[in-house]
Amino acid sequence: MRRCVEIAKKAIGHTNPNPMVGCVIVKDGKVVGEGFHPKAGQPHAEVFALRAAGDLAENATAYVSLEPCNHYGRTPPCTEALIRAKVKRVVVGMVDPNPIVASKVGVEEELCKRLNEVFIHHILTRKPFVTLRYSISMNGNISDWLGEGAMEFGGYYSQLLQEYDGIILSGASLTGSSCLPASQELQCKQLKQIIVASSSNSPAKLPLLYQNADDQPIIFADKNAEVDPEIAQHGIETVVLDELRLGPILNYCQRLGLCSLLLDTRGFCRIFEEFVKEGIENRLLQKVVMEVLPVWNGSREAIAVPAKNFDKEVRRLAKLQSRMSNGNLLVEGYF
Amino acid sequence: MRRCVEIAKKAIGHTNPNPMVGCVIVKDGKVVGEGFHPKAGQPHAEVFALRAAGDLAENATAYVSLEPCNHYGRTPPCTEALIRAKVKRVVVGMVDPNPIVASKVGVEEELCKRLNEVFIHHILTRKPFVTLRYSISMNGNISDWLGEGAMEFGGYYSQLLQEYDGIILSGASLTGSSCLPASQELQCKQLKQIIVASSSNSPAKLPLLYQNADDQPIIFADKNAEVDPEIAQHGIETVVLDELRLGPILNYCQRLGLCSLLLDTRGFCRIFEEFVKEGIENRLLQKVVMEVLPVWNGSREAIAVPAKNFDKEVRRLAKLQSRMSNGNLLVEGYF
Repeated sequence: MRRCVEIAKKAIGHTNPNPMVGCVIVKDGKVVGEGFHPKAGQPHAEVFALRAAGDLAENATAYVSLEPCNHYGRTPPCTEALIRAKVKRVVVGMVDPNPIVASKVGVEEELCKRLNEVFIHHILTRKPFVTLRYSISMNGNISDWLGEGAMEFGGYYSQLLQEYDGIILSGASLTGSSCLPASQELQCKQLKQIIVASSSNSPAKLPLLYQNADDQPIIFADKNAEVDPEIAQHGIETVVLDELRLGPILNYCQRLGLCSLLLDTRGFCRIFEEFVKEGIENRLLQKVVMEVLPVWNGSREAIAVPAKNFDKEVRRLAKLQSRMSNGNLLVEGYF
Repeated sequence: MRRCVEIAKKAIGHTNPNPMVGCVIVKDGKVVGEGFHPKAGQPHAEVFALRAAGDLAENATAYVSLEPCNHYGRTPPCTEALIRAKVKRVVVGMVDPNPIVASKVGVEEELCKRLNEVFIHHILTRKPFVTLRYSISMNGNISDWLGEGAMEFGGYYSQLLQEYDGIILSGASLTGSSCLPASQELQCKQLKQIIVASSSNSPAKLPLLYQNADDQPIIFADKNAEVDPEIAQHGIETVVLDELRLGPILNYCQRLGLCSLLLDTRGFCRIFEEFVKEGIENRLLQKVVMEVLPVWNGSREAIAVPAKNFDKEVRRLAKLQSRMSNGNLLVEGYF
C-alpha cells in the first residue's frame, strides 16, 4: 500500500479535481503491474496497472490506495475492469469519501487519506482546502524569511507550490522581488497567483520583471488601495472590494475551480492578521505548515511574556508532526 | 559505536563531573564484552568491558565512545589496561576534549559528542551547561503549559530533569502547585531546585505540600521580593541580591558543583525575559529545548505582525533538529 501511495504521488499537482491514486498488482509475492492516475480525463490507476499485468492479473491481488470506482463517469467503472481481469482479491487503502460511492474498510488508511487530503475536503465540502504557511523564529516571531534552499528545486516551498492550485499573497511581499513565486519542481503546473492589496500597507505592485505570463495573477484590492498603473496596462484582473475579507476571496477562487490554496504570510501585513483570525473563527483554514527558522531574532524582546489568561482561548490542532525537508524544519498540523 | 553510546546512556545523570562512556569489545564479529562508566569514582567503561571479555579480549577490537584516558587520576590509565589485555585495535568515537589528554581521530564523532555535551562544555569552560526550555503555541506565544504526559514517567520533561544537575525556576511557577518539579524516571538523582523570586511579580512561596526534602532548594530573591516566612522556618538557603541577574546565579551554581542547569520559563515573569536576553548576549546559554504545543491560542492577536527591521538583529542557532518524545513535539538547537 505504501508503494501505491509512492507511485500515486508521481501525479502530484496534476489530478485535480480527481484524487491521486496508485495501484499495484501482486501475484505469488511479485509485482506484476503498477499504475497511477496521471490526470483528470485520463484512465484510472487500476486500468494502467491491469494493462501492465496483462494475463498475469488472473488470480492476483490488486492493492489500490483509494476504493475503486463503481459508477460511470468519463471512464467505465474500475470494479468491472478488475472483475473482467479475474483479479482474485482487492485491498483498498481508504474508502472513497465521495457520497456517490459506497464503502467499508481501509489498509494504511491514514497514509492514503493524507495523500488526498485536498480531494477529500473538496468532495465533502465543495470548498477549497486552505493551508496557512508561515515561518517562525525560535523565539516565536513570525518572519518574512524562508529557510535556505526552500525556494529552490527540492526545497519545501517549491514543493508546496507544486501541490496547490493557487497562492494568496500580500502585495507587499512582491515589492522589490524579481518575479512571482513559482515552483521549481519539474513538470509542475502553473499556480494561480492571488495578490491582496490593502490601502493600509500593501500597495498592488507587480514584480520588477513581470512578463505577460500565460496564467495571469488576480488582484484583490480594497477601494482605497494603491494600484500600480502597469497592472491595468497588462490587463490583469483586478477585483475591488469594499472590505477585504478571506471568505469572499475564497468563494471567488472556488468559482475559478481552484481546489487548494496556500495562504502565505510573507510580506506580512495587518490584513493577513485579520485573514488568519477570520479563517480560524469561520473554519476556512484546514492545515498549517510552519517553518521553524534556526534563528533567535530581535534584541529588544528576546522572548515575549504571554498576556494574562492567554491560554483560555485555545484552538487545538490535530495530528501535529514535524519533518525535515532539505535542511528546513517544518511542523504541520490540522485545524 | 552506536551500541557504545546506547549503553553509555544507562548512566545518564549519574556520571558528573565525569563523562558518560560506553565500551564494546568485539572479536571475530562477535561482542565479547560490554561496559559503561556508571558513576564518578567507579571504574571506567573499558575496565568493565575488559572484565566481561576476560581472555577473549586478546586480539580483539575495543570500541570506546570517548578516547581512553592515558593519565593517572583516581583510576589507573585505561590505555594500560587495554595494552595489558592484548587488545589488538582501539576504535575511538570522539577524542577527549580534556586539555590534559592528547588525541587525533573520531568515529561517529557527532553522536558521541552529543552524548556528553555537558561534560565537554564543562571541561573546556569550567562553567555550567545551560539549556533554555520553554513551550510555544503554533502561533508563537510562549506558554506555561506542558504537553500531555510530559511530566510523567517517560515524558520528555521528566527525562530532561533527569539529565540536569539543577533547574532554575520562577517562584511564580510554584504558586498553587503541590510539589517541586522532580523527574519521574527510575533511579534518578535529586535535582537541585533554584527558585527565583523577584519583587515585580514572582513572590518566593513554597509549594503547598513542601516537606523537608533531603536536598533543599535555594532561593534567589531581590531585596524587595516577598519571601514566605515558612521559607525561613524551614531553614532554606536564601540569597538576596540587589539586582537579579543570570550571571551571578550561574556563578553561585558553579561553586556548588552543578555542571548543568535547565532554565525553565514556566511561571514566566519579566525577570526571565531579562535572563534570556542576558544569557544570549553574554553567551551563558548553550542549548534550547522548545516544545511546540498543538494549540493556537489567544483570540485577539491570532498571529503577531513582526516589528519593522525585526530580522536585522539575529542570533543563529546551530544543529536545529526536531523529535517526537512520547507524543510531544520538541525542537532542539544550540546557541
